[in-house]
Amino acid sequence: MSYLKASEIREILKVTERPEVISFAGGLPAPELFPIEEIKEINRIVLEESGPKALQYTTTEGYAPLRKWIAERMNSRLDTSFDSDNILITHGSQQALDLSGKVFLDEGDIVLCESPTYLAAISAFRAYGCEFLEVPTDTEGMIIEELEKLLQSTKKIKLMYVIPDFQNPTGRTWNYERRKQLAALATKYNVIVIEDNPYGELRFEGEPLPSVKSFDTNGYVLCTGSFSKIFCPGYRIGWIAGDKDIIRKYVLVKQGTDLQCNTIAQMEIARYLDIYDIDQHIAKIIETYRLRRDLAIKTMEKTFPKGITFTRPEGGLFTWVELPAAINARDVLVKSLERNVAFVPGGSFFPNGGKENTFRINFSNMPENRIVEGLERLGEVLREFVR
Amino acid sequence: MSYLKASEIREILKVTERPEVISFAGGLPAPELFPIEEIKEINRIVLEESGPKALQYTTTEGYAPLRKWIAERMNSRLDTSFDSDNILITHGSQQALDLSGKVFLDEGDIVLCESPTYLAAISAFRAYGCEFLEVPTDTEGMIIEELEKLLQSTKKIKLMYVIPDFQNPTGRTWNYERRKQLAALATKYNVIVIEDNPYGELRFEGEPLPSVKSFDTNGYVLCTGSFSKIFCPGYRIGWIAGDKDIIRKYVLVKQGTDLQCNTIAQMEIARYLDIYDIDQHIAKIIETYRLRRDLAIKTMEKTFPKGITFTRPEGGLFTWVELPAAINARDVLVKSLERNVAFVPGGSFFPNGGKENTFRINFSNMPENRIVEGLERLGEVLREFVR
Repeated sequence: MSYLKASEIREILKVTERPEVISFAGGLPAPELFPIEEIKEINRIVLEESGPKALQYTTTEGYAPLRKWIAERMNSRLDTSFDSDNILITHGSQQALDLSGKVFLDEGDIVLCESPTYLAAISAFRAYGCEFLEVPTDTEGMIIEELEKLLQSTKKIKLMYVIPDFQNPTGRTWNYERRKQLAALATKYNVIVIEDNPYGELRFEGEPLPSVKSFDTNGYVLCTGSFSKIFCPGYRIGWIAGDKDIIRKYVLVKQGTDLQCNTIAQMEIARYLDIYDIDQHIAKIIETYRLRRDLAIKTMEKTFPKGITFTRPEGGLFTWVELPAAINARDVLVKSLERNVAFVPGGSFFPNGGKENTFRINFSNMPENRIVEGLERLGEVLREFVR
Repeated sequence: MSYLKASEIREILKVTERPEVISFAGGLPAPELFPIEEIKEINRIVLEESGPKALQYTTTEGYAPLRKWIAERMNSRLDTSFDSDNILITHGSQQALDLSGKVFLDEGDIVLCESPTYLAAISAFRAYGCEFLEVPTDTEGMIIEELEKLLQSTKKIKLMYVIPDFQNPTGRTWNYERRKQLAALATKYNVIVIEDNPYGELRFEGEPLPSVKSFDTNGYVLCTGSFSKIFCPGYRIGWIAGDKDIIRKYVLVKQGTDLQCNTIAQMEIARYLDIYDIDQHIAKIIETYRLRRDLAIKTMEKTFPKGITFTRPEGGLFTWVELPAAINARDVLVKSLERNVAFVPGGSFFPNGGKENTFRINFSNMPENRIVEGLERLGEVLREFVR
C-alpha cells in the first residue's frame, strides 16, 4: 500500500517538473545555496592529493576522518558521547532507516511511530513486513501516556521511530520532558528507538534541545543524521550512530547490501569540513529558510480562509496544514494543480490511513516571490472549499 | 553464517592493508589506471554547466542520459533490445543483488547458484531468509541436466543466480549452448534469472558470447552491470536491466531503500562517456590485466607443486586454485600470512559449506613484480603442504 502511495507522490512530483508549476511538494533544499565553488575546489584537492584512494573501494564503515567529525559534532550539539566506532556512514539517512528495518524487523513485527510520520520511513520499514501502530501525537511530541499504554498492551514491538526536531511532515519539535521519558520507556520495555534527525541543525529560533539519545544510558537509542540538508543531497551521505555492538551489526548488514558508500564523496565532505567553515554555511541556510518560513506563514495567514490551521515550525523545511474535517486535501490538490500549484496531501503520512483533511507545505526550495505567489493562488483555491 | 564468513574475509583484508603484505585477496581494480585527470575535468564541467542540478536530489530511476547509454551499450555488446526504461541505476551492482532479494525473496525461498558462487551475493540474498541450492558446475557453466533435475524436484525456487562471464571466484565462462538452455529453463519453470555481469567488458582473448538475456523471449532474465571495473568503484554506480514491469517494481523498492544514487556521480560518468573514449580506456585495462594474468599463470605453473590445478580465465580478475582434497586452504593461509602473502580461502564461496581445498587469486590489483614475488612465496608455502 505504501508503495502505491509513494508512486502517487512520484506522479505529483513529475507534474512539478514543469517550470510553470510552483511546487510546495518536495522536501528539497535550496539549490542556490549549494557550495558549488567550494566543491569544485575540494574535488580538485582530493583527486590531486589522493586520487587512486578516492576512486577505489573503501571500508564498509566509512571514511575514518568523516566518522570522527560526525562523532564530535554530535557530542557537542546533541550531548552524546560517541567516538568513530559509534558511527556508520550510510547512503543518505534513508539507508539508515532501511538498514534498521533489515537489522531489527521480521514479518509481523510492530513499529511505533508518530501520527503522522515520515512517508519514506513507512516504505523503508514496511518492506520488511512490519505493521505500524501510530502513537497519538500533539504539538509537543508523542503523548507519553498513550505510548506507554501501547508498550504495555502490545506484543512484538521492535522499534519506536521518531523525528523529534522539526518533524517531517508537521514541523513540530518534541519538548525536553518527553525526550527524557521516551528514552526511559525504551529501557523499561526493552525496545529500540530510531531517532531520525535530518533537520536538527536548521533551527531558526529558540533553544536547541538535547537529543533523546543523550538520555539513553543503556544503548537503546540509535540516531541518524545527514549532510543532505546542510551540504547537499546529491552526494547521498548520511549516517547512523549508536551502541558499538549494534553498529557492528549494521556494518555487516550494509556490507551485503551495497558494500560501502561513495568513496570520493566521503573524502570530499571531510576535506570541506577541514578547509571551510560549515557553521557559517549553515547560518546562511538558516537565514534563508527563516525568511521563507516567515513569508510562507504570513501569506498563509493572509490568504487562507478561517477554519484552516497550520504549524509555525522553529526550524526545518515544512509546515503542516489542517483543513476542516469534511474537506479532502486530494480534491484540493486537483484544483490546485489546475492553477499550477502543487503540495503533498497529508493522508499518505499516516501509515494506517487517516486524516485526508491535511497537507504538507515545503518552504525551503523556492525563491521568495514564488512562495508568495503560490500560496496566494492556493489561498484562492482553498476559498472555493471553505466559505 | 555468511555474515561470519564475510567478517572473516574482512579480517583477512585488514591484514592486507599493511604495506608489506602482497595481497591476492581483494577484488580491486588497478588504481593506477583510474582516469584521474579526466575525472577532474568532468567534475569541473558538470559543476560549471549544471552545479545546482548535480548536487540536488534526482529521480530514483537514475540520470536519463546515463540510462540511455547503458541500454545502447548492452544492445550492441550483449544482443539485448533495451531502452532507458529497462534500466535502473543502482549503488554498485551489489545493490542490484540486494534489491533482487527484496523484490523476489521471502523466508524459506530457494536460490539456485553456481558452485562455487560470489560470496557477497550469498550475503545479499541470505539477508532475506532464503536457502541456497548449489548446482553442480563445471568449466563450461552449470551442468544443465543437474539444473533441470533440481528445477523439477524442488519447490519454492525463486531465483537462479549466475555469473556467466569470468565468474567470481573461478574465472570460468559459460559456453553458448548452456546460456541458451538456461534461458529456456527459466521460461519452462517460471523462475527468474539474475545474470550478474561485472567483468564481461574485460575479455583478454577469445570471442565474446551473447548474454543469457539475449535468449530470453519472455522477460525472465535480469542483467546487472557496473562501472566499478571499467571506470572506478569509488563512485558506486551500477545497474540492473530487465523487463519494464519488473524494473518498475525495483524502482519502487529502491525508493524506500535509499531514494536514489549519487546525482553528480551519475552526471559525471555520463559526461565522461560523452567526451572521452571509454573503449580506449577499457583496452588499456585489458592490456594490463592480460599481462598480469599471463604472469600469474606462468609463475603458478613454475612454482606451484604438482597436484595443484588452477583456471586460466579468458578475462576478469580472478583465477581459482584447487589443492589436493586433504589440504585445507585456511591452513595454507595461516602459513602464507606469515610470509606476508594473502588470498581468500575458497570454502566461503560455497553457500552450504564445501570445498576447503580451494582458494581464489586476484591478479588485477598489483604491479607485475609484486605478483611474481607473491606467487613465488606462495609456491614455497604450498610446497610445505604438497610434497
